[in-house]
Amino acid sequence: MNDRLPTSAPSRPGDDFESRRVRLAIRRGEHRGPTAGLAHGFVQANLMILPRALANEFLLFCQRNPKPCPLLAVSEPGEHTLPGLGDDLDLRTDVPRYRVWRDGELVDEPEDLHAVWRDDLVAFAIGCSFSFEEALLADGIDVRHVSRGTNVPMYRTNVPTAATRRLHGPLVVSMRPMKAADAIRAVQITSRFPSVHGAPVHLGDPAQIGIADLQHPDYGDPPVILDGELPVFWACGVTPQSVIRTVRPTFSITHAPGHMLITDVPNARLASF
Amino acid sequence: MNDRLPTSAPSRPGDDFESRRVRLAIRRGEHRGPTAGLAHGFVQANLMILPRALANEFLLFCQRNPKPCPLLAVSEPGEHTLPGLGDDLDLRTDVPRYRVWRDGELVDEPEDLHAVWRDDLVAFAIGCSFSFEEALLADGIDVRHVSRGTNVPMYRTNVPTAATRRLHGPLVVSMRPMKAADAIRAVQITSRFPSVHGAPVHLGDPAQIGIADLQHPDYGDPPVILDGELPVFWACGVTPQSVIRTVRPTFSITHAPGHMLITDVPNARLASF
Repeated sequence: MNDRLPTSAPSRPGDDFESRRVRLAIRRGEHRGPTAGLAHGFVQANLMILPRALANEFLLFCQRNPKPCPLLAVSEPGEHTLPGLGDDLDLRTDVPRYRVWRDGELVDEPEDLHAVWRDDLVAFAIGCSFSFEEALLADGIDVRHVSRGTNVPMYRTNVPTAATRRLHGPLVVSMRPMKAADAIRAVQITSRFPSVHGAPVHLGDPAQIGIADLQHPDYGDPPVILDGELPVFWACGVTPQSVIRTVRPTFSITHAPGHMLITDVPNARLASF
Repeated sequence: MNDRLPTSAPSRPGDDFESRRVRLAIRRGEHRGPTAGLAHGFVQANLMILPRALANEFLLFCQRNPKPCPLLAVSEPGEHTLPGLGDDLDLRTDVPRYRVWRDGELVDEPEDLHAVWRDDLVAFAIGCSFSFEEALLADGIDVRHVSRGTNVPMYRTNVPTAATRRLHGPLVVSMRPMKAADAIRAVQITSRFPSVHGAPVHLGDPAQIGIADLQHPDYGDPPVILDGELPVFWACGVTPQSVIRTVRPTFSITHAPGHMLITDVPNARLASF
């Protein structure tokens, strides 16, 4: 969580200055670290970029897996813009760190996509739990990895995603430990945000979803779990990266975990009511 | 609303006997009328069937227009099953009346699809307001067309859908007149059902969305509006039929309005929380 932008006053939802300011700073190369805590109040997105030949099937995969892959926007082939998420947004430059995958292997983590961009690429912006965490924090719930300044722990489960012909792989979940009353309240709050994973997919015994040891997450940092707390699990937007490792498509690009695409959409606008 | 199946005791959500019984009766040709009121408690779906060549783009259209086109399921090309909606479901026989469209013109209203089925067809099951009407009725709200035994009035608006390259056309809405307090409550209730159109898209002045005369709906029956009531408008699953008329694809199949696909999914399962 180092390498932060110097922040001025926190922005407010509805004020698009801060999100744009941060995005332009990233584009200029002035911020290369994780984006948690930046442009407070604005939606950040997971990114998945695929060649057109696989893009339609990934769209179907997202339709069949709305909890891990809630789509915020899909680009037109070859276009590096997503005007619905930000007028000036440029998919080639506006994420602080990308991951380039060939045949399912991570081959590079570039800071822009100028060297690898192709005219047949389609980008998918997928909701991110940062949006609902803001609502949990606003309710007074201790979101542990936020209060401890670490990355949220994420785990590959034994729960299969709903496959398409070529795309399949295990569901990845993020975990937040909470007292039961807070967990119940968190179910209510996150249910209001279906486009950023919605309600939890599991709580309690991690073994029931194939997690052997909470202290060894597959992504992110180990959690601090206090006495009397339950682990609460949400579907995670890193699931597509697990699908890439499983399916090994010839070419794909994602964001680097924690290094999200910052949009001009206020988090409040994602509430279903 | 004639031509009804003789009904036995109403079924309960969670009891899949009644939905299956009705679906099999339709398959045997014993019911050819509208499906409103049948298999109480179970989800009914709008149907859109397109050749594979246009299906991926329609999937994208649905992603961009989730209020009129909330997808419940998408078939594999050429498969006439949707196992997620009913183990035995057969898309060729289980709707009481279909519409076959060529070049945007309605050319036939067959009772099954055996004569026109093709191996390249992809079916889209789209949520239907019957599901949320059950929740409104359960709350004690007078859903006028239900209490009067007519079809819900539907209107083409001047609100454009979010276009894809080839697919575009005006949003179609359904309308239910209500007192203001009931309209506010209906906003709360239907917000819980995003996969069957969710919250209203408009209320009050019809002219603001391009409706000149509520007594002349484009589909369904004219409404009875009582003193002190507001018209409340929801996005409608007939919107794809309006897109067909606008875009004129070579070949497509839909259900006939009011003649829905009956599934084994309890309405209660569509509640977002």
